[in-house]
Amino acid sequence: MLQEKYQNYTDQLQKLADIEYAAAVLEWDKEVNLPKKGGQIRARQTATLYGMAHEIFTSSKFKDLLEELNQGADRLDEKQKRNVEESHRTWLRKNKFNKEFVIKRSKLVSEGYHAWKAAKEENNASKFLEALKPLVELKREEAEILGYQEHPYDALLEEFEPGYTTAQLDTLFKDVKTQLIDFVQQIRQKPKVNNDFLKQHFPHQKQWDFGIEILRQIGYDFDAGRQDISDHPFTINFSPSDVRVTTRIDENNFGSMTWSCIHEGGHALYEQGLPSEQYGLPLGQFVSLGIHESQSRLWENNVGRSLPFWEAHYDLAKTYFPEQLKEVDAQAFYKGINKIQPSLIRVESDELHYHFHILIRFELEKALIEGSLEVEDLEIAWNEKYKQYLDLDINNPTDGVMQDIHWALGSFGYFPTYSLGSFYAAQFFEQAKKDIPHLITQIKNGDTSSLLEWLRNNIHQHGKMYSADELCRRITGESLNFKYFMDYAKKKYSSIYFEQGL
Amino acid sequence: MLQEKYQNYTDQLQKLADIEYAAAVLEWDKEVNLPKKGGQIRARQTATLYGMAHEIFTSSKFKDLLEELNQGADRLDEKQKRNVEESHRTWLRKNKFNKEFVIKRSKLVSEGYHAWKAAKEENNASKFLEALKPLVELKREEAEILGYQEHPYDALLEEFEPGYTTAQLDTLFKDVKTQLIDFVQQIRQKPKVNNDFLKQHFPHQKQWDFGIEILRQIGYDFDAGRQDISDHPFTINFSPSDVRVTTRIDENNFGSMTWSCIHEGGHALYEQGLPSEQYGLPLGQFVSLGIHESQSRLWENNVGRSLPFWEAHYDLAKTYFPEQLKEVDAQAFYKGINKIQPSLIRVESDELHYHFHILIRFELEKALIEGSLEVEDLEIAWNEKYKQYLDLDINNPTDGVMQDIHWALGSFGYFPTYSLGSFYAAQFFEQAKKDIPHLITQIKNGDTSSLLEWLRNNIHQHGKMYSADELCRRITGESLNFKYFMDYAKKKYSSIYFEQGL
Repeated sequence: MLQEKYQNYTDQLQKLADIEYAAAVLEWDKEVNLPKKGGQIRARQTATLYGMAHEIFTSSKFKDLLEELNQGADRLDEKQKRNVEESHRTWLRKNKFNKEFVIKRSKLVSEGYHAWKAAKEENNASKFLEALKPLVELKREEAEILGYQEHPYDALLEEFEPGYTTAQLDTLFKDVKTQLIDFVQQIRQKPKVNNDFLKQHFPHQKQWDFGIEILRQIGYDFDAGRQDISDHPFTINFSPSDVRVTTRIDENNFGSMTWSCIHEGGHALYEQGLPSEQYGLPLGQFVSLGIHESQSRLWENNVGRSLPFWEAHYDLAKTYFPEQLKEVDAQAFYKGINKIQPSLIRVESDELHYHFHILIRFELEKALIEGSLEVEDLEIAWNEKYKQYLDLDINNPTDGVMQDIHWALGSFGYFPTYSLGSFYAAQFFEQAKKDIPHLITQIKNGDTSSLLEWLRNNIHQHGKMYSADELCRRITGESLNFKYFMDYAKKKYSSIYFEQGL
Repeated sequence: MLQEKYQNYTDQLQKLADIEYAAAVLEWDKEVNLPKKGGQIRARQTATLYGMAHEIFTSSKFKDLLEELNQGADRLDEKQKRNVEESHRTWLRKNKFNKEFVIKRSKLVSEGYHAWKAAKEENNASKFLEALKPLVELKREEAEILGYQEHPYDALLEEFEPGYTTAQLDTLFKDVKTQLIDFVQQIRQKPKVNNDFLKQHFPHQKQWDFGIEILRQIGYDFDAGRQDISDHPFTINFSPSDVRVTTRIDENNFGSMTWSCIHEGGHALYEQGLPSEQYGLPLGQFVSLGIHESQSRLWENNVGRSLPFWEAHYDLAKTYFPEQLKEVDAQAFYKGINKIQPSLIRVESDELHYHFHILIRFELEKALIEGSLEVEDLEIAWNEKYKQYLDLDINNPTDGVMQDIHWALGSFGYFPTYSLGSFYAAQFFEQAKKDIPHLITQIKNGDTSSLLEWLRNNIHQHGKMYSADELCRRITGESLNFKYFMDYAKKKYSSIYFEQGL
């Protein structure tokens, strides 16, 4: 009887997944293929699908089913129990909002997005901030509706990083402020590393072919995915057997395509490794944005910007770009791709300064949500913090408070997950080195298969079986600890900036 | 009150359209992009969408709405009335089948398709015919369920060519048998035309670029569509603002890509010309398969294989393929692309022999449905007819009874619409020449815009406002008449085969 209900629950969730993944195909197609005039009707087609999915999930029929299963959860097996509990948690969260609120939110998000786009084109922050004001008010209301224990920001963070709290982020970013700023300031006093060779002309087709080859090298399965070009690189999945990545190619910048490929490849390896028998169920899904980002950053930075990785693949790069790289040896290449230099734009940042960009956003959005900062004062606050943490002046709001799309879409609590990703990545990678004998030698020999297998076994195959914190403790024996990132950063960048040679 | 109901009906149908076009995006993606392992889950995602669309359309709520509107149809405006009547007609047809029958049909169609694929690979007709037998029985049952006035085949034809009857097809194909066979036999006695130049090496990228250019020339709007590569060329639409075509490229055959581009381009021009304000409603849809095919064939044959068209574009072809075409002048090219020669394969046939391929299929499927032929005897009957009408021996069932996918998918009554398309095209084109002063001169100057405008005004913009026969009478003053095709064929091929020079 309970098993019948569980089957019914599975059927409903898989139907939902069919609809939502179909919508995802429409979104992928929009970014990659859509003809100019096709946008308007495509938007309504996508909205219809999401609307139907929402109807099924919030139906009283599904509610009753979930509640009955949740009450009998102790009679289900461990995985079933976890699925039901996770679904129930999501259901409760989604059902706290009345229809009026949901409609208002969609409207403000849509207006926010269009205002942001227009404001960026006109380099006119006030247009953006005007649209942001009611959106921030709505998010404050949302936090109240959702409820929280200590801080209203907790309620919003829960959407992206379930179980993580504002207090924990405060501790983490205190470490960033004290330990990382200090270290980066030491680096800034050292002679600059040369990376001019990255800014030569790298032909489109050669970059494309090289990117595909690198994706193959790290284990991305092209029989269960494909790569295309889009304005902004992204990963999207329709099932573990169809996980697609996109990249962009700047012919005057070798870095833009290369590390975006490896980054998205890392996300995609996670999705390709999720258990397909749990299709549509929580256990078929990723743990949290922070854990997702740990996968992309582990491959992008801990592996893809490491010396062993390029000792393995630099010859390949040279066969694609013999002229451009002929006077650069592997070590100079390694140094160049790890140049530390403050920049105004988050997505162009090096892997250390990156966390100041996130720190700033975290402090600002926390203040906005708790009401200690108003949107009217946001731009000034933004500019002050860039001066304080990065010693940079912002002359142009497109390079300042308008550079990211997140707030315009109402995403508050999202930014910190990027930093969490890097910090988890460092902690996981350290553990992988302990667990896999000769991992670094393997990477040096161009073989990352044991690393992928380790990630599959320890992370990917579990889906949402464990929370981020449980997962981290299972794997590394402790909760997230900034120390691992700091050790990684110190070791890597000391050898680049403070020691003779390498 | 009635207008409110009409609005409700419109909302329902547009929601249905959203779902069905979303499924179409998934199908397009499957043909063009899908990674190897993605097929299984994609199939269930697509099936879920079609299932939901079916549920909405066959719901008692929608039934009640349709019936109320249909009863009050005289108080609706002319277009609304037509929409409601068409929807009602479709509804009645779809609701004649019980769930059991629908499930059985899906199952047999799926088995038919897989058996056909496997049988083709093994060149083993019996495997295919085994699966076809229950499918034919089911189609006989389907005809009885649907009902008919004179002939069970009428009931199936209605799906593809509403309003056209078996008796009308008998008359039409009698003309084909008497007039066209006689003419083609005269041609066969004449010296063969040389088309060897089409079989040189034409590089992939050059063909691709040339195809895009030709599509642009005939007026295909790339802001409301795109072209891609797939195994079999097709046109698919998600709205009039997003109508996509695909082509295939054979580097050793210039014809394969070129006329498939123009053919699909003709289909696409029709879809791009449908009224977008009627999105999701019958008036936003094509009339019948025969009328759809008339658009592709008019562009492919009446325009795209005409001397004036190539007088306009042959220089362009020569800039793409200077070496390949250097010793071929426009007239030799024109003759070559219109070579008449019997072939075993329908889709490789010239535009005259083509109708014998259809005649054979029509006679066979009519006999199967009325029960005067059994599947056991189909292969022999097929081979005999190819001997009788085309004087060809079939040594290989993949080149014979297994060459087409249609029957394996349970599509009986579909084939004749291909011939109807050619015959309508000839009749329409003849009328266009009367209505548009200097049309041929315009085409010779590379300008087909008046022709497209004529098709937009006379056909495309009306959607399903008129039946195929009404439309034909409105445009040409009479019902479909084989005479126009025969005149076109005689004039064109006499000048190629019977007269000195051109």
